[in-house]
Amino acid sequence: MSAGETETGRRRPGRRPGAADTRGQILAAARKIFAEKGFDKATIRGIAREAAVDPALVHHYFDSKDGVFVAAMRLPMDPSVAIPRLIAEGPREEVGRRLARFILTITADPQAREPVLGLVRTAMTNEQAVGMIREFITKAILGRVVESLGVPPLRMEVAFAQLFGVVAMRHVVRLEPLATADIEEIVDIVGPTLQRYIDGP
Amino acid sequence: MSAGETETGRRRPGRRPGAADTRGQILAAARKIFAEKGFDKATIRGIAREAAVDPALVHHYFDSKDGVFVAAMRLPMDPSVAIPRLIAEGPREEVGRRLARFILTITADPQAREPVLGLVRTAMTNEQAVGMIREFITKAILGRVVESLGVPPLRMEVAFAQLFGVVAMRHVVRLEPLATADIEEIVDIVGPTLQRYIDGP
Repeated sequence: MSAGETETGRRRPGRRPGAADTRGQILAAARKIFAEKGFDKATIRGIAREAAVDPALVHHYFDSKDGVFVAAMRLPMDPSVAIPRLIAEGPREEVGRRLARFILTITADPQAREPVLGLVRTAMTNEQAVGMIREFITKAILGRVVESLGVPPLRMEVAFAQLFGVVAMRHVVRLEPLATADIEEIVDIVGPTLQRYIDGP
Repeated sequence: MSAGETETGRRRPGRRPGAADTRGQILAAARKIFAEKGFDKATIRGIAREAAVDPALVHHYFDSKDGVFVAAMRLPMDPSVAIPRLIAEGPREEVGRRLARFILTITADPQAREPVLGLVRTAMTNEQAVGMIREFITKAILGRVVESLGVPPLRMEVAFAQLFGVVAMRHVVRLEPLATADIEEIVDIVGPTLQRYIDGP
């Protein structure tokens, strides 16, 4: 079934055919819906309606609401995939170091970093968009760690603030020596902090 | 001697009299000079020249270059005054908690917070202004702690990133429970982190 057809093959008014176009159409609709409703209240059904496509097609392209958001914002990874993998990948007593290394490695690539910094800039300057970004951080990122590692939300938010601050000071403000320090040197400093936040006092 | 006069009492062309006006004139000139030259290369002499006043008058109103910057950016405190006081105020083994409490208390007041967040927004979005802000952070804030407590610059930058991140997540992104948590509850979490960064591994 193409994007322009219903399950019975009949063309619906306002729908356009063409797969490449359809994907872009869904992402444009998603940006509009996320901006209007926030992350929590946006639904795949609502995004599909806005894009004038079948909801099954949104699932087909992006799998989940998290996936649509990640694609719409051009983020370099989907936390619903990356976080469980990162947690499972090694021992719990090193998850702080793994988290720090993961964020520093992703943001080392300018192409992956730019959309993340774009979202940071939006959060810092756009009062309307900040709700959507807050909900995504809370639900799609922090909620997953809080739940699977049993970390109190306040501590997890302070841990997130540490990583956010390091990325901002390294790649936006570009404080030296932080801006050009080796990733592993920063992991040695920040990793134990994250681990303490995760493990408790 | 008024702002419009030289040391010999002769009026210079382009100078205007009036103390209230002169102060504003100096601050406008300072904003221009800091934006053009950055914090490091700006001088009281250059700001005085731009404002068409005597350098002694800039010293008289603002004491130091740090003081001019703080007034020009409407910051709620002058680090050249606040940091030495904060360090001397209690035992070294509690300086992490004092730093956290100080930043959280200052930014709890919306009137004091707004210019700080303004500077943060500028740093995040204005490629030209970021150099000036980086130099101010490095020289006027971090340099002072690095020197008086003997902390390696990289660790001090990571400590600063933690405080920056907490303020951004508490007051801009407004993650809950961080946005409404008691100051002392956050000090209990962040204080030991800052202390570890200051004391070494």
